[in-house]
Amino acid sequence: MLSVVGLGPGSKELMTVRAVETIEQAEVVVGYTGYIDLISKAMLEGKEVLSTGMRGEVERCKLAVERAAAGKNVVVVCSGDPGIYAMAGLVMEILEKRDDAKDIEFEIVPGVPAFCAAAALLGAPLMHDFASISLSDLLTPWEVIEKRLAAAADADFVIAIYNPKSRKRSGHLRKALDIVSRFKKDDTFVGIVNKADREGQNVIISKLGEVDEDKIDMQTVLLIGNNSTRKWNDKMITPRGYAAKYDLDD
Amino acid sequence: MLSVVGLGPGSKELMTVRAVETIEQAEVVVGYTGYIDLISKAMLEGKEVLSTGMRGEVERCKLAVERAAAGKNVVVVCSGDPGIYAMAGLVMEILEKRDDAKDIEFEIVPGVPAFCAAAALLGAPLMHDFASISLSDLLTPWEVIEKRLAAAADADFVIAIYNPKSRKRSGHLRKALDIVSRFKKDDTFVGIVNKADREGQNVIISKLGEVDEDKIDMQTVLLIGNNSTRKWNDKMITPRGYAAKYDLDD
Repeated sequence: MLSVVGLGPGSKELMTVRAVETIEQAEVVVGYTGYIDLISKAMLEGKEVLSTGMRGEVERCKLAVERAAAGKNVVVVCSGDPGIYAMAGLVMEILEKRDDAKDIEFEIVPGVPAFCAAAALLGAPLMHDFASISLSDLLTPWEVIEKRLAAAADADFVIAIYNPKSRKRSGHLRKALDIVSRFKKDDTFVGIVNKADREGQNVIISKLGEVDEDKIDMQTVLLIGNNSTRKWNDKMITPRGYAAKYDLDD
Repeated sequence: MLSVVGLGPGSKELMTVRAVETIEQAEVVVGYTGYIDLISKAMLEGKEVLSTGMRGEVERCKLAVERAAAGKNVVVVCSGDPGIYAMAGLVMEILEKRDDAKDIEFEIVPGVPAFCAAAALLGAPLMHDFASISLSDLLTPWEVIEKRLAAAADADFVIAIYNPKSRKRSGHLRKALDIVSRFKKDDTFVGIVNKADREGQNVIISKLGEVDEDKIDMQTVLLIGNNSTRKWNDKMITPRGYAAKYDLDD
């Protein structure tokens, strides 16, 4: 049995009941060191834990598949949802290469994605059509990323930005904001959330023309509003359109 | 205290620990009848339950705010995540109109969105940049929806379609698929998921040129792949790009 499990944004409180149970029943838990650290020691007691550093994801997922092929009950843990910029696909691509893949029972346990946890802290910035774009060009050509930024901004999607920065790519965020600014006004509200639901959580509401890049690191999620996103009571609201159709007063 | 809580796709297993605890501690639970039914009777015992039919969301959220203003511990429940086409925004818009809003403690408890639950059942169809678009024109002009469909398809996003059909809008899905087909090939894989994680769950993998509209209702989520989405072992995989950089064989 091989399960790819989303831990949600960080705390055990935002893990699903099924994620908790799946990890508890596993014999082997595989994951990036930073994600293993999100799981309580009590939950990991008596299990084989295989953790590797950040760029070790291929090695990690291969190890997990091998342990499962050898008959172990294996869990690969990811933060957020395993299907969003995480390990569900890579595990499947590794399974795909193996002749014994059909003998390995496989499941994906969805989780609360990072951008939903960020949105909840910001108020209600999503609420309407949205696009999610990663600025990492490790596995995607930068031209494709640029095209998606422009398309999403031009069609007035709310935009979630993942992987806004890394040690190697300090200029990408600036370029991305410049592209979005060709279509969205400088006073468009932008939510900037670091470490949602983890120690060190930080929530900022800024504007497209005023984003402070020093407040942003690799794990920050940015949520750029659409043309009707507003700020109220230190929260972002992207109205769905009810006020135009219904009386929202008492 | 007023909490807007995401129940996740359906079963208690995919509720977060915090959602379960928040509902357990509430005195009043407010929600659409269909969502209230997702919560076990044991969890609701001894609570005031205020449920209304599908178009009653404004009335429901006003009631919830009034009960919270009167000092009750109130939970508004939504399926999926409360920030994605659900009640987080509407509750905030109603709060915004009240002079006593600052006296009402307010929180949003994120949940597993329907499209993530659908993706997990389909395999790994998201994995790369994606856009989410609702075909409901009750609150959004159809021209805006058309523009977003074209933009997302042209920039090769994976596309999640919410609200593909209703009794009043039988032609919208056909129009939407035609727009997407101007940019994506007819053999692009499309995942069609009904009632993810609920009784009656049904998962279909089809192609853009072959979507059977009879298999789709109001609550179906469609996930339209990007140009590299493939099918393997009755699952969808949208590769992230690892295979181009790493050796995925043993």
